[in-house]
Amino acid sequence: MKDYKYLFEKSPLIPVIAQDVSTMRVLMLAYMNEESFRLTLATGYAHYYSRSRNALWKKGETSGHFQQVVKVFSDCDNDTLLLLVKQTGSACHTGNYTCFFNEIEYKEGN
Amino acid sequence: MKDYKYLFEKSPLIPVIAQDVSTMRVLMLAYMNEESFRLTLATGYAHYYSRSRNALWKKGETSGHFQQVVKVFSDCDNDTLLLLVKQTGSACHTGNYTCFFNEIEYKEGN
Repeated sequence: MKDYKYLFEKSPLIPVIAQDVSTMRVLMLAYMNEESFRLTLATGYAHYYSRSRNALWKKGETSGHFQQVVKVFSDCDNDTLLLLVKQTGSACHTGNYTCFFNEIEYKEGN
Repeated sequence: MKDYKYLFEKSPLIPVIAQDVSTMRVLMLAYMNEESFRLTLATGYAHYYSRSRNALWKKGETSGHFQQVVKVFSDCDNDTLLLLVKQTGSACHTGNYTCFFNEIEYKEGN
């Protein structure tokens, strides 16, 4: 595997956006350390690092809601990742399809 | 305007994903503090907070590449935002349409 240390130079944990490759909906934002990134590439399934539990986790490991990775992009600064995934079931632990289900009321001039 | 302090309770700066409402492509990840969030809602144009320059900025202020906000969502934890925007020109300072233009070579078992 190539060396992807450059992605973790600024910070050992980087934000990762997961987007559903079929619906193009943004599903969640999570974090990866270098090990979870390597596991993601090696297995083809998204692995993240939980900041609250200080532990690596495979997405779907307890829920069965795995994310099969289709494409991986880094941004212009190489400090954020975008995964295009095939989502099994719902991405959010609340049971919602996406974590971004809270719409904030927004009107010009509010 | 409603009180959105709850979004900034865990951290004064929260990550914000900007997604093009017409193409559904993810454009960039940036950060907001409470003031930039208020300005975004009040003006209808995305305002972020630059961690490197320690300053609030209106996206497009120098480039002309504004982001007109169409919808705003917070995630299940209320610590990340998703903006659906109408992007003028390119979102990335490199001139690319999206900041996520670096595809990482990825094959099962690589």
